[in-house]
Amino acid sequence: MQTMQAVWLENQVLSMHQNAPIPVPVEGEALVQVNLAGICATDLEMVRGYYPFTGIPGHEFVGQVVQAPGNASWIGQRVVGEINLTCGECRQCRAGRASHCEQRNTLGIRGCNGVFAEFLNIPCRNLHRVPASVTDEAAVFTEPLAAALEIQQQIHIHPEDRVLLVGAGRLGQLIAQSLALTGCNLSVVVRHALHQQLLAQRGIKTLIEEHVELKLWDIVVEATGSDSGFNLARQAVRPRGTIILKSTFAGNSEINLSSLVVDEIQLIGSRCGPFAPALRLLQHKHVQPEPLITARYPLSDALAAFKHANQPGVLKIILDVGATAGIKAS
Amino acid sequence: MQTMQAVWLENQVLSMHQNAPIPVPVEGEALVQVNLAGICATDLEMVRGYYPFTGIPGHEFVGQVVQAPGNASWIGQRVVGEINLTCGECRQCRAGRASHCEQRNTLGIRGCNGVFAEFLNIPCRNLHRVPASVTDEAAVFTEPLAAALEIQQQIHIHPEDRVLLVGAGRLGQLIAQSLALTGCNLSVVVRHALHQQLLAQRGIKTLIEEHVELKLWDIVVEATGSDSGFNLARQAVRPRGTIILKSTFAGNSEINLSSLVVDEIQLIGSRCGPFAPALRLLQHKHVQPEPLITARYPLSDALAAFKHANQPGVLKIILDVGATAGIKAS
Repeated sequence: MQTMQAVWLENQVLSMHQNAPIPVPVEGEALVQVNLAGICATDLEMVRGYYPFTGIPGHEFVGQVVQAPGNASWIGQRVVGEINLTCGECRQCRAGRASHCEQRNTLGIRGCNGVFAEFLNIPCRNLHRVPASVTDEAAVFTEPLAAALEIQQQIHIHPEDRVLLVGAGRLGQLIAQSLALTGCNLSVVVRHALHQQLLAQRGIKTLIEEHVELKLWDIVVEATGSDSGFNLARQAVRPRGTIILKSTFAGNSEINLSSLVVDEIQLIGSRCGPFAPALRLLQHKHVQPEPLITARYPLSDALAAFKHANQPGVLKIILDVGATAGIKAS
Repeated sequence: MQTMQAVWLENQVLSMHQNAPIPVPVEGEALVQVNLAGICATDLEMVRGYYPFTGIPGHEFVGQVVQAPGNASWIGQRVVGEINLTCGECRQCRAGRASHCEQRNTLGIRGCNGVFAEFLNIPCRNLHRVPASVTDEAAVFTEPLAAALEIQQQIHIHPEDRVLLVGAGRLGQLIAQSLALTGCNLSVVVRHALHQQLLAQRGIKTLIEEHVELKLWDIVVEATGSDSGFNLARQAVRPRGTIILKSTFAGNSEINLSSLVVDEIQLIGSRCGPFAPALRLLQHKHVQPEPLITARYPLSDALAAFKHANQPGVLKIILDVGATAGIKAS
């Protein structure tokens, strides 16, 4: 049995696994050698115990297909991959809502090993080829950018809309960049100087919480996953306006449902999004995620990378897996 | 000063006022002699203290214009009236969201006497003529029927949608009748035999809570204003489905916002609606509210009427004001 280096999560403890078995793909699956992997808020929350998971975590990656039984055309392709492993047969799959598959497993989150390893196994139908002009450093953001684009998959953002984004962290930065492309009148609530600077460099307006005009905004995107973020969103949105919930929250929240009725507020939960448009925006450099990389660590230093990712204000921490393995991305 | 009989609410105590002053309309206002008035859940909640209000309660009415300074054409007209008294100048009014006017008063609910009296004063711009073929007993339901139609003003209900209505009381019955007109696949969760019978008479499917299939429904309308009703709605709606909140809730509710994110649920608060389509549906008898009248009381027996309206399962209690005053509706 061939083995590989991998991060291992068990009972909320992260460790390095030096001899994890390299998975063996069956027909319809691909073995992907990971080039880069990104640490996201969900990974950090799993370590805090918000989601029960035992195995190799991680779901943001770019890599190269090295085996694909029955699908030789995939071999050698540089790819990113959708994270929901779906049955194709349940009511949700048949209704075209595969990301809500009732039997789904999720890469590195539920029922399936993830990408913080030298190799991963993934169904070929989850793969997307990365255009040559998209660097690994951009491609590794495809999954969170797709999640950002889910907002526009769900609601129509008009060019004249006043849109407030609460939260300018890992995901918030990508949401800000993609919302700005609609031409909408966008402002982003920031807390950290670095977050503010990155947005200002792209000409995106920022403001601090105390300066948010209340009951004004047509659309408010909540990307903090905190009750204080939700409360700000609730106060900022105008009557008949829309709040998009883009982050998960720990535990229950105290919500005044009557006030939603009286002000006729629309609240929309938003999760995974479409990969193809994310890759198009990266290809045309309409979204440029590379400046969001705070630091890169070799896979062997993944525990230090997680520690770094947990610090306040830190943006994307990348695991440079290809470098560790001695196989540099093309 | 001319006086009239009226219901009076003060410090959560209802009483009869035998010598309330008859209001004097100024230019742009109409003095309306009330024929019938309906008791709604909001009226009952005001007595329980959920809303602070001192004055004449009530906002559902049909009556006849007796004075209209500067607008003589209204005199003698049989009318219903919109309940929000708006400024026409604030940001919400100018944006076409008059029912969300930032300065608004509301008939019998906030800052303005209501309709449980022989006469009321109301701006002429709030009035709608009642077509001759619409009886007083139907017209008195115009306001709650308009509120029911607000759902279809907010979201597109497709003929193929599976729609679940939770709650078949005063408002629920009108929602059920209006939703059925879309051709959608509608089921209504009922608790009371009378509610079930009224819906069955119109060929509307009913079921008990225990038989509701979960994660199935495209759209769920919550019309109970109870946490148990909301929880049922939340469990019943499918991923990416919509929950309409059509009733106000007492206090805060414990909501798992993460589950809304994961299942990408849409939650929409819904309040007052458009009168003109409500009158059209009544005129063409597509909605028939008369069977929802549980009992009629003369205005002088309003306290007994409120007591009756508070009993479980009771539908609409009507105050027969014209009869009390000895002036029968034409």
